[in-house]
Amino acid sequence: MHPFDKALELEPSDDGRWRGRTVPEWANMVGPFGGITAATLVRAVELHPQRHGQPIALTVNYVAPIADGEFDIVTRVVKTNRSNQHWIVELSQDGEVKTTATAIFGLRRDTWADTEVTPPQVPAPEDTVASAPPFGVVWFDNYDMRFADGAMPDDGAESGSSTTTLWVRNNPPRPMDFAALASVSDIFYPRVFLRQGQFVPAGTVSITTYFHADDEQLAAQGDEFVLATARAQAFSRGYFDQTAHLWGRDATLLATSHQVVYFKG
Amino acid sequence: MHPFDKALELEPSDDGRWRGRTVPEWANMVGPFGGITAATLVRAVELHPQRHGQPIALTVNYVAPIADGEFDIVTRVVKTNRSNQHWIVELSQDGEVKTTATAIFGLRRDTWADTEVTPPQVPAPEDTVASAPPFGVVWFDNYDMRFADGAMPDDGAESGSSTTTLWVRNNPPRPMDFAALASVSDIFYPRVFLRQGQFVPAGTVSITTYFHADDEQLAAQGDEFVLATARAQAFSRGYFDQTAHLWGRDATLLATSHQVVYFKG
Repeated sequence: MHPFDKALELEPSDDGRWRGRTVPEWANMVGPFGGITAATLVRAVELHPQRHGQPIALTVNYVAPIADGEFDIVTRVVKTNRSNQHWIVELSQDGEVKTTATAIFGLRRDTWADTEVTPPQVPAPEDTVASAPPFGVVWFDNYDMRFADGAMPDDGAESGSSTTTLWVRNNPPRPMDFAALASVSDIFYPRVFLRQGQFVPAGTVSITTYFHADDEQLAAQGDEFVLATARAQAFSRGYFDQTAHLWGRDATLLATSHQVVYFKG
Repeated sequence: MHPFDKALELEPSDDGRWRGRTVPEWANMVGPFGGITAATLVRAVELHPQRHGQPIALTVNYVAPIADGEFDIVTRVVKTNRSNQHWIVELSQDGEVKTTATAIFGLRRDTWADTEVTPPQVPAPEDTVASAPPFGVVWFDNYDMRFADGAMPDDGAESGSSTTTLWVRNNPPRPMDFAALASVSDIFYPRVFLRQGQFVPAGTVSITTYFHADDEQLAAQGDEFVLATARAQAFSRGYFDQTAHLWGRDATLLATSHQVVYFKG
């Protein structure tokens, strides 16, 4: 089984309750990679028999580190409207909440459409070096990351810009879906590392992802690379923000994603 | 009493429960202005005796329209960490949930700081015409809005850009605080109106605001105008996103805010 799908294996344990477990392949410095947790919460809602429509918006709040082992997810339908549906999701271990989320699923309808932003102009992934991050974190091996701009600093040099742009896909390749897109929305190492040219303690507190692509547009991506670009807007008294765009190789804007990150330094 | 503070009047009704009521001054086309609801949820957490720190991040999900009359807010501390605190908040009427939110409060610490984005260059508010929106919505009267760019269209002309920039402050003026900032983060009329040059059915589904300013920086704003700028990034199959910056008159980035909006057209 693909390591991504292995992490998303959930068994129903009661009405709206699911049981899952951490897998060693997704270990981060403390607990699992936040992206795989976000993906697991998307999957839990997708599995719910009352699920109505496709993911539109997801906010995941990282409350406390998830310990190695089993966890419980409770998915609660707050309300099902005609065109959308609101969820509250909580992941806990031994009764202690580790992650909270709200999700909005919705029906997609044909409307006028336009994308105002444009993707960064970068060389193709085939012409970009696959990079190994300068320090070993287990989950990095699950992605093929090819940095066009703002690779993780390994020389102590400060940067005036917090922008990182990379091609990224699952390693081994795997078809794109909403869970995979939720995960890759959190692919970026902390922007403060790039600005300061060094590792400092930092961790995502909350991430919000808006899904612009529908299921057909995601399926059309196949297992191709995604062009992911992110920057911080402000660093202030212990927290910074990050705003990101996830582009399909066909220049479809798949998602925009925002997060607030705790840091010291 | 100032109409803003009148809308935020809450009485404790039980442990972590609050009772409030809609006020006619904040009426939108359906239910109250979303910004005043967001502000009320911030205030409910601020009133909680276990509140720890200042607002860092707020996500508000508009589940169903709030009817005229009383409402109940339940504030639940999910976890208090050393430096931050996670909340789940629900607003309901007669037991039916109308709004959900997650909030992160945190302690601010002295760290390295930098703002990477820059405010739009526009004339001072004193040199900008206070504008009356072309159709009457009650809550608009609670703000003095002076559009530098992207005023609400009244001539049917489509626009190639969804960007709106305005100076805005409470009317009558009122000192800035976190609740007021949460409200003004939702000040923008739907971006699809600007692109299409006309009113179409649209409504915010979810808004996320990151507070970059701390309480001292907010207090320093006094009752001055805020420079608010927003744009959409993508319109796709029934939903579009909006990303916004709220600047103090002293060029402090007070907040960044993001939302996803339902639309027809």
